[in-house]
Amino acid sequence: MDILIKGVRLPEGQVRDIFIEDGRIDEISAACTRKADRTVDGAGKVALPAFINGHTHAAMTLMRGYADDLPLKQWLEEKIWALEAKLTGEDIYWGTKLACLEMIRNGITVFNDMYWFWEDSARAVCDMGVRGFLSAVFIDMFDPKKAGEQIESNIELFRMAEKYRPNVVFSLGPHALYSVSKESLRWIAEFSRKHNLLVHMHLSESGDETLFCREKYGRSPVEFLEEQGLLSERFTGAHGCWLSADDAAILARTKASLINNPVSNLKLCVGRIFPYGLVHEHAIPYCFGTDGCSSNNHLDMMETIKLASLLAKFSTNDPTFLPARETFERATTEAGRIFALGTWEIEVGSSADIILIDLDRPEFVPNFDTYSDIVYAANGYVVDTVICMGRVVMEGRHVDGEEQIMERARRAARDLAAR
Amino acid sequence: MDILIKGVRLPEGQVRDIFIEDGRIDEISAACTRKADRTVDGAGKVALPAFINGHTHAAMTLMRGYADDLPLKQWLEEKIWALEAKLTGEDIYWGTKLACLEMIRNGITVFNDMYWFWEDSARAVCDMGVRGFLSAVFIDMFDPKKAGEQIESNIELFRMAEKYRPNVVFSLGPHALYSVSKESLRWIAEFSRKHNLLVHMHLSESGDETLFCREKYGRSPVEFLEEQGLLSERFTGAHGCWLSADDAAILARTKASLINNPVSNLKLCVGRIFPYGLVHEHAIPYCFGTDGCSSNNHLDMMETIKLASLLAKFSTNDPTFLPARETFERATTEAGRIFALGTWEIEVGSSADIILIDLDRPEFVPNFDTYSDIVYAANGYVVDTVICMGRVVMEGRHVDGEEQIMERARRAARDLAAR
Repeated sequence: MDILIKGVRLPEGQVRDIFIEDGRIDEISAACTRKADRTVDGAGKVALPAFINGHTHAAMTLMRGYADDLPLKQWLEEKIWALEAKLTGEDIYWGTKLACLEMIRNGITVFNDMYWFWEDSARAVCDMGVRGFLSAVFIDMFDPKKAGEQIESNIELFRMAEKYRPNVVFSLGPHALYSVSKESLRWIAEFSRKHNLLVHMHLSESGDETLFCREKYGRSPVEFLEEQGLLSERFTGAHGCWLSADDAAILARTKASLINNPVSNLKLCVGRIFPYGLVHEHAIPYCFGTDGCSSNNHLDMMETIKLASLLAKFSTNDPTFLPARETFERATTEAGRIFALGTWEIEVGSSADIILIDLDRPEFVPNFDTYSDIVYAANGYVVDTVICMGRVVMEGRHVDGEEQIMERARRAARDLAAR
Repeated sequence: MDILIKGVRLPEGQVRDIFIEDGRIDEISAACTRKADRTVDGAGKVALPAFINGHTHAAMTLMRGYADDLPLKQWLEEKIWALEAKLTGEDIYWGTKLACLEMIRNGITVFNDMYWFWEDSARAVCDMGVRGFLSAVFIDMFDPKKAGEQIESNIELFRMAEKYRPNVVFSLGPHALYSVSKESLRWIAEFSRKHNLLVHMHLSESGDETLFCREKYGRSPVEFLEEQGLLSERFTGAHGCWLSADDAAILARTKASLINNPVSNLKLCVGRIFPYGLVHEHAIPYCFGTDGCSSNNHLDMMETIKLASLLAKFSTNDPTFLPARETFERATTEAGRIFALGTWEIEVGSSADIILIDLDRPEFVPNFDTYSDIVYAANGYVVDTVICMGRVVMEGRHVDGEEQIMERARRAARDLAAR
């Protein structure tokens, strides 16, 4: 299905027509005369590449607001784990759909997820028409029997994941080094290399994690993961707040990437701000994530990038640090590079993952600088239209099936809490 | 004009009718049978007290996005001051209207402002039907001649401010202790006492300010202001990031209040996070502000309170700190106390400053806890209806005259930058 976006503004100001064919941008011109199956009116809107959400636990939307403002241990052990133990595949399906709905409404077409019930998440992603790098939660708690089961299950998921392409890409999701054995990490490293799979792992999130690694392995988390052969351009480490300068040098050398989750880091009190200065100094690739809805509680990438830019300025004591345009590009173009999605820009040949932003709002007045307005003055509600791989998934803020998704997710969450 | 809000939810879950008469909540009942001039449908919405924005420079909306990501000195001297020198009363009128429009859309009915061209701001506030504590920017740069002019001008404004009541309350706005002489501060303290006027001042915002005060007066800013007799329950100090424990004790003793502006503090790199722990320990009253649009750049109190709660948790290393309900209440009920607006709750006798929030959105699913959802998952776009002093200023997200305001403000800003 071809799409023609008529008369849309590019951020630099020119008004253009964009022709989309086979899921890619095929033409950008002042006046496109080709016939499309569908025409989208771009008047008064600006076209931008869609956001990529680098770290999520999508179905945790079901637990939004269930247990906030609690000490970490109580929150996790008494509340979150207690609920998670009762989750069903059907819960996951509706929770993931709710997350996808929320992400579409916030201009996100791709997300990097780690959660339970892989196939139910995969079905939800396909049904919503977005894209997910989905990993199961690989946890063995240093138990060889569990490790064996996890490996088997991951091989099986990998084999049948083909059928969910292109919306879903199977990834490996070792939870964290305090919940996955060294042997399993080595298997993951090898399996990732052999099949060119992305690895998605929590990394250097908290002081406790660093301490655990030091005590068990006599190394920092990054040093330890390098020794297991896990660090490469296929590795995305979520958080990275506790990285040292030596760690940063290793990440740079191994070409691993980081995902910065500023809202979650503050809300869960991980104790340190993402080391923006250090990460820039070593030119480590990084983009942004919302994390799951139990620690954010909103899947809004514009809220996340504003906070990232503010924290970067504050923590480096430099108001010029992480300026608007760079912040926006990290959440889009740079994220596209990290997830090997090709050129992620409004350019001929790029994947047609495009958002149209409605500029007719008070917060876009006077609109001296569109990047500044998007990063510092806007939130997800300014997104009017979302196109994912050449398919319109939202237009005029309407997403097909949204009422049913909210109703079913609401019911699933209430049943879960009462179960 | 009487208003009846039919079948609206209160945050605790009950569905009620709210009858508004003479600008106050007159009845809250399960089924109100009185006839009103106007009926507002509350179905699917929750009623809450409106937000109060504790620190603004409203007309700086005109400079939104004009100069971001610059070093502080360059930003202020080359960009902001250069534009401000060219401002006209007409610019201020439209810039303030744009700010009011944006604040209404974000559920704010009262704001505490400090800016140039007092009367033009006052006209804008009245025309928009909201409420402003407006102060002129009192700056004398230690020049006795300027001080005399400022005093004269403030007396004159005070005299004619009556005619802008009840929407506008005249306040005194000594800019900061590095821009106002000791003699002027003493006059302000005395004039505030005599006429029961609010004092609105930047306080302990930056390390430079603290250093300046130490060098010039041998005291901390708070110690110095106490000696000038300026600290009382009429004093609202914006920022307070650099307060010491001794300062906190003085503020508590004198019953002065603070306004926390988390977005601005991070964006401008003031070097420290608001000392939430210290301020709570001394039970200093405080609420929240957005600051002006050059250092935020969005007048969204929901965005601001989420960040405040996150920073409070992070900086105290305590995830239970500034929980959702307390955060919300500081932005409403506590702010109402600080600005002497009476009981600021959904209660009989309270001022009818009410917002209705539309719950039918993905980010309010599953809605386990309305306060948590509002503070951690929402932004200003969830506000559907706004009532200020018993008058509907927005319904179904429509504000009368919004197109004209955007158009005129857009033009004023472009003219200003080109002037």
